[in-house]
Amino acid sequence: MERYDLIVIGGGPGGYLAAQRAAESGMKTALFEKNKLGGTCLNEGCIPTKTLLHSAKIYEQAKKGESFGVTAETVRFSHSRALERKDRVVKTLVSGIEAAMKRKKVTVISEQAMLVGKTEDAFEVQAGTAYYTAGKVVLATGSEAALPEIPGLKEAVEGGFAVTSREILQERELPDKLVIVGAGAVGLEFAAYFAALGVEVSVAELQDQIAGRADKEISALLKKALEKKGIRFYLRCKAARITERGLYYEKEGREELLAADKILLSMGRKPRLRKTGIWNVGLEAERGRIRTDSHMETSVKGLYAVGDVNGESMLAHTAYREAEAAVHHMRGIEDEVDYARIPAVIYTSPEAAWIGETKESAEEKGISVVTAKLPMIYAGRFAAENEGTEGICKLAAEREFGRIVGVHLAGPYASEMIWGIGALMERGTTVEEIKRMVFPHPTVSEIIKETAALLSAKR
Amino acid sequence: MERYDLIVIGGGPGGYLAAQRAAESGMKTALFEKNKLGGTCLNEGCIPTKTLLHSAKIYEQAKKGESFGVTAETVRFSHSRALERKDRVVKTLVSGIEAAMKRKKVTVISEQAMLVGKTEDAFEVQAGTAYYTAGKVVLATGSEAALPEIPGLKEAVEGGFAVTSREILQERELPDKLVIVGAGAVGLEFAAYFAALGVEVSVAELQDQIAGRADKEISALLKKALEKKGIRFYLRCKAARITERGLYYEKEGREELLAADKILLSMGRKPRLRKTGIWNVGLEAERGRIRTDSHMETSVKGLYAVGDVNGESMLAHTAYREAEAAVHHMRGIEDEVDYARIPAVIYTSPEAAWIGETKESAEEKGISVVTAKLPMIYAGRFAAENEGTEGICKLAAEREFGRIVGVHLAGPYASEMIWGIGALMERGTTVEEIKRMVFPHPTVSEIIKETAALLSAKR
Repeated sequence: MERYDLIVIGGGPGGYLAAQRAAESGMKTALFEKNKLGGTCLNEGCIPTKTLLHSAKIYEQAKKGESFGVTAETVRFSHSRALERKDRVVKTLVSGIEAAMKRKKVTVISEQAMLVGKTEDAFEVQAGTAYYTAGKVVLATGSEAALPEIPGLKEAVEGGFAVTSREILQERELPDKLVIVGAGAVGLEFAAYFAALGVEVSVAELQDQIAGRADKEISALLKKALEKKGIRFYLRCKAARITERGLYYEKEGREELLAADKILLSMGRKPRLRKTGIWNVGLEAERGRIRTDSHMETSVKGLYAVGDVNGESMLAHTAYREAEAAVHHMRGIEDEVDYARIPAVIYTSPEAAWIGETKESAEEKGISVVTAKLPMIYAGRFAAENEGTEGICKLAAEREFGRIVGVHLAGPYASEMIWGIGALMERGTTVEEIKRMVFPHPTVSEIIKETAALLSAKR
Repeated sequence: MERYDLIVIGGGPGGYLAAQRAAESGMKTALFEKNKLGGTCLNEGCIPTKTLLHSAKIYEQAKKGESFGVTAETVRFSHSRALERKDRVVKTLVSGIEAAMKRKKVTVISEQAMLVGKTEDAFEVQAGTAYYTAGKVVLATGSEAALPEIPGLKEAVEGGFAVTSREILQERELPDKLVIVGAGAVGLEFAAYFAALGVEVSVAELQDQIAGRADKEISALLKKALEKKGIRFYLRCKAARITERGLYYEKEGREELLAADKILLSMGRKPRLRKTGIWNVGLEAERGRIRTDSHMETSVKGLYAVGDVNGESMLAHTAYREAEAAVHHMRGIEDEVDYARIPAVIYTSPEAAWIGETKESAEEKGISVVTAKLPMIYAGRFAAENEGTEGICKLAAEREFGRIVGVHLAGPYASEMIWGIGALMERGTTVEEIKRMVFPHPTVSEIIKETAALLSAKR
């Protein structure tokens, strides 16, 4: 029975980073992953979709290059070649993680691992026919697509008519009519990809806006831009049943059909708790997820849960941060995860990215805020690089002290320029301070400074 | 004789922002600009080149889209259409500034203005046949291309064979062989543009590296990437003379010919002092530029100099910052320009961007630093979006306290993600703090966090 300082169960972003950081600090660490390292994010999520979306972007730009002086005849897109490239990229990155684990001397074991017991000072873990013990365990088993009980859904999934994001990435053939259920980040990114390829895409969403909890103007701008690309949205629509004809949705008591030859189910994800064996060490799930404190420790001392399995934010970068905090806690280093600074990004064209409060969410919490917004055309580079694209920057600051509490962006580069705002929010930076910062010219990021100047004038 | 609180001479970035900020604070403000508002940056510099470079990027991507799944037949580029679009973009942005001046109630006077005298409490300015007075004056007359004394240069310029960045933007016809003198940002950006269009481009540079004072590895990476696009560099080469055959350069005592049918002179810029009339108010130029204190005030109380005319950094975003500081000083608000945090950006593909110290420059100043670097392929999004492109992130931190003192990037999005580092450097942020920040995944910006983690381990 091999003994480790730390056993990590699950090799996604939360799991492999926890293993890496622990090993770096001298802990003898084992990482269990029955599939490929990298988890859902790398193998079936973020990275595959970004790879495909970049291909689609090149395709769209090549087709509409005329206003930029670029003409091309018979521009064609090969979905299967884009998929092959995606496979190559994923393989390269998986190898990168494998190499990192080796370099850091993390023992990687390609087995499903389960907690089976606990002594005074150690957890017992079973994988295959072998047993292992460790003083600490990080549970990082991730999540899986949530599939609500909808009549016909089970049969449609079994028959391959309805799929999740995982399966759709395997399919070489394009559907003619794709119906997507759920207009969150995953649903929108796939909608954008397939619409760019000429697929007729309809998206049904239960809420009254797309893009989840995005600021409502950001959401509206994104919806308009995606509609221009041919995507049709059906809001306040409840998926009622699935037949071989497509998806029937319910709106205001009436049932309507969205005809489809493929249905993509993107209605959120749920923590993966099956076969974790948490009950064997006295841990209970709460509402299908594992609760932790701000150091990622569960109610069982020494047992941590990071990433999607704790149901907190279900984003890879949250998992990374949680992994760092968990390992810090094991080592007695003060660290806490602050969920108020976690950025959300949607990689459509235009992109959307945001952190923190909207006017509405701040007011719900009783924070008095001032907001300002500017179209991105106020940034010279946006004008230089765009034709017929809209972009917007919104900032929210506390009325009293002027500290930034929210930023909401839609437009090119949003994903790459937002990190700095989160870092500054963490430091309590005020709108007056941002107004005095130097932003390189010409960049789209200057819109942040411009909006800060406007907001400052309104306070 | 109309009296103003503030007269601004020159309508480029430094000038129009100074006018705008002053007017916003209630000062009666006049802005003199004999050409178009926006100055060199908007009309002949940053914005035109970024517009053209974006067109070229779309062209290059359309041509080499195959590995991404995109094929196109006979992809063509129209230089004249790209130029027409550039003109449209510039016009839109100039109108934007005009509208802003109007909205802020800045009086814009389309005349060349000259300082003609000074009383106890006011400066006297002449423009055309009219005279104006103001308690404060901001000199923002910008710069012009520096043209060293090289045999044959004067004749070549007069004949249109040798041009500066200003004239080359007007030429509808492409040269076959373009020789560029000077491998700074301007030279490199034009080199990248014309090489993308199939022009044979050679660049002669006096220094032993391209990209000015860039970190030497950044410079080398950029050189390699641009050479792959067909650009030939001639380093440690002194422009010796120009004949109708091309440029003769001198290297190690020998003279060689770079044959050309067009020569672009990009050997830096010099402050524009002619006709400013500074001597009429008792101000002397020093080494061809106007010295100021950290509030942008010259040795003559009430007379400020912002932007290229002070010769300090010759970047639009420096001018903006200086304009803010100048107006703050007039209003009694504490503010100083910190030149150590000014970002430099080169908009080639890949881009390069940096702020602060390299290992070498820090050591020259006696600062003991630790540095770390990572290839950008460590960032998943970089892998998802690039084929055959290299990128790098280098960080420098003080050895003792870990505060970041320099960041050096080459790769996509460098321009849009660098602003945050400058903001954090201003706040004395340490590498350990950056290590704990949340960067959205997957973004190229994550490479900053990864490099910080590596640097932290080296301290």
